[in-house]
Amino acid sequence: MNNFSIGVDLGGTNLRIAVVDEEGHLVEKVTLETKVSLGRDHVINDMCGAIQRLTEKYKNSAALLGIGVGVPGITDLQAGYLRDSPNLPGPDYPVRAEIERRLKTTVVLENDANAAALGEQWLGAAKNFPDMAMLTLGTGVGGALVLGGQIFHGMTGMAGEFGHTTIEPEGNPCGCGNRGCLEQYASATAVVRMAKEEIAGGQALALASAAQSGAEFNAELVYNLAIQGDEAARRVFRRVGRALGIALATLVNSLNLPMHVIGGGVSSAWDAFSPVIFEELRQRSMVYAATAPPDPLSAGQGVSASRSCRKTIVTRAQLGSDAGLYGAARLPMMARTNR
Amino acid sequence: MNNFSIGVDLGGTNLRIAVVDEEGHLVEKVTLETKVSLGRDHVINDMCGAIQRLTEKYKNSAALLGIGVGVPGITDLQAGYLRDSPNLPGPDYPVRAEIERRLKTTVVLENDANAAALGEQWLGAAKNFPDMAMLTLGTGVGGALVLGGQIFHGMTGMAGEFGHTTIEPEGNPCGCGNRGCLEQYASATAVVRMAKEEIAGGQALALASAAQSGAEFNAELVYNLAIQGDEAARRVFRRVGRALGIALATLVNSLNLPMHVIGGGVSSAWDAFSPVIFEELRQRSMVYAATAPPDPLSAGQGVSASRSCRKTIVTRAQLGSDAGLYGAARLPMMARTNR
Repeated sequence: MNNFSIGVDLGGTNLRIAVVDEEGHLVEKVTLETKVSLGRDHVINDMCGAIQRLTEKYKNSAALLGIGVGVPGITDLQAGYLRDSPNLPGPDYPVRAEIERRLKTTVVLENDANAAALGEQWLGAAKNFPDMAMLTLGTGVGGALVLGGQIFHGMTGMAGEFGHTTIEPEGNPCGCGNRGCLEQYASATAVVRMAKEEIAGGQALALASAAQSGAEFNAELVYNLAIQGDEAARRVFRRVGRALGIALATLVNSLNLPMHVIGGGVSSAWDAFSPVIFEELRQRSMVYAATAPPDPLSAGQGVSASRSCRKTIVTRAQLGSDAGLYGAARLPMMARTNR
Repeated sequence: MNNFSIGVDLGGTNLRIAVVDEEGHLVEKVTLETKVSLGRDHVINDMCGAIQRLTEKYKNSAALLGIGVGVPGITDLQAGYLRDSPNLPGPDYPVRAEIERRLKTTVVLENDANAAALGEQWLGAAKNFPDMAMLTLGTGVGGALVLGGQIFHGMTGMAGEFGHTTIEPEGNPCGCGNRGCLEQYASATAVVRMAKEEIAGGQALALASAAQSGAEFNAELVYNLAIQGDEAARRVFRRVGRALGIALATLVNSLNLPMHVIGGGVSSAWDAFSPVIFEELRQRSMVYAATAPPDPLSAGQGVSASRSCRKTIVTRAQLGSDAGLYGAARLPMMARTNR
């Protein structure tokens, strides 16, 4: 067995822990429920217990390189503190020191969106692209920037918040204080809101009847209607594509990166929104227009060829919900290389 | 005398050439008219002649480190080609090879907005800030990104086009193909257009009478009315500030840089537009809100103190129209360090 590290994805619903070797093979994955309601100590206990069991199991076959943890919320990465994390509620918390104390090994902490980007950059859609950006379309819209194979953290670890790019200066209020952020048009929450706006507009019979059916009214339901050809549901995803196109145009004009990966749950609706992304990008970004691949929807498949052609690629994530887990496992390996 | 290089700023009106030593002292500056109408060869002849005279004059006192040239337009920096440059019109042109052939020394080419940013980073408002962004408010809005003390060029040398950040998705058409770019609200051209919109709106008597006076109706005239308290002229600069605030909010959320420098001719109207920038930034950028200096309008003065506090600074450029000249002279010095 190759040397390995342990990656943790501390999500709001699931606490996932994986043994990943240096070549990116997933050796074993454990999925637990994140029992946020039982308190932070309970969650940390569950996590440390699972890590310990996995470490015991594999430590005689190969060397443990460390533990990487992806967490949502604002983190002070240098100090290893967690701030305002919804899944570990409570005051500022020295999560790194606490895990290191219990497990007596190196722990590297990272924001969950950054961990997902590292995963896609290591083993997924952005493999062989040391410079890339990622947008994660989930409950909110997370973002991450990788330059030279490393997360670009910015001055205080807050870089990469592409989900709060202003799309409509007087648009829908956002939790961040701004109005009209990308997150208000491209998250799962936004898909549901925009579908309800369609229902309120009175021209969305199928959406209205689905809303009254008793089934959970979520982004997936809206997508299912869209692929069945329902025009109101399709309008919702065209708005998703337009907002992503506007945000990506600004990003491409600003950074001229070769690779942009769209992940998260809403990216399952790629077919419904991606054509509009490319229409918007061609019109709105002169940098994109000068570097667009002839067939943007299939670019990103033949990745190594595209790279040498210096084209701007926007493509779907490939690792699904495991991206953050792989990225978290990658963290202690990178920390060793950087020493 | 310290070793020196020669910086060239190939502007649309003036061709400026300066001898700058390694410590950033301007030893001698020559200003010529850029005779674009006489053709490209004439401009190149004028430039090479002036460089040769300066080289002859100083080459016995110290070593010439090379020549740096800042040019507007899209350049292929690696190949040393100039594309679509308004000041050297004609088909793609191997400007670097041509100057190197004539002068037999190293020539480094750079986009003019990037050169200005390098100047401010070396000797101006962003001194001691290896990570910074610059916006140059001129006829258009140029932009540049410096990371780790180096220009961030992106995949094809087109990074830093912050002037084409989308502010209003259905706003004023921009020459780049997009609508509602920052350039449509924060350039000198935009100030004049917005002032004419005020006049057309019928509530701008002072602007209307100035427009009929026979004096050139330019951004400076609008600014002079604004500082005299004319409400319509002040509205124009509030629109400038709002657009800059929206664009900077996205930039701060995306890159979390410590330093943002606003230069170019329109930055002379700093007093008229900057308060709105900070209002918008506080509301629109959670990253700015978390890192704003207590007094943003005076931050950037005590630069070294501010840096250690990890605050997000937005400030005026300090070198005026010489920024690009200093930055161009810096280029061959950096090229040596990077070898």
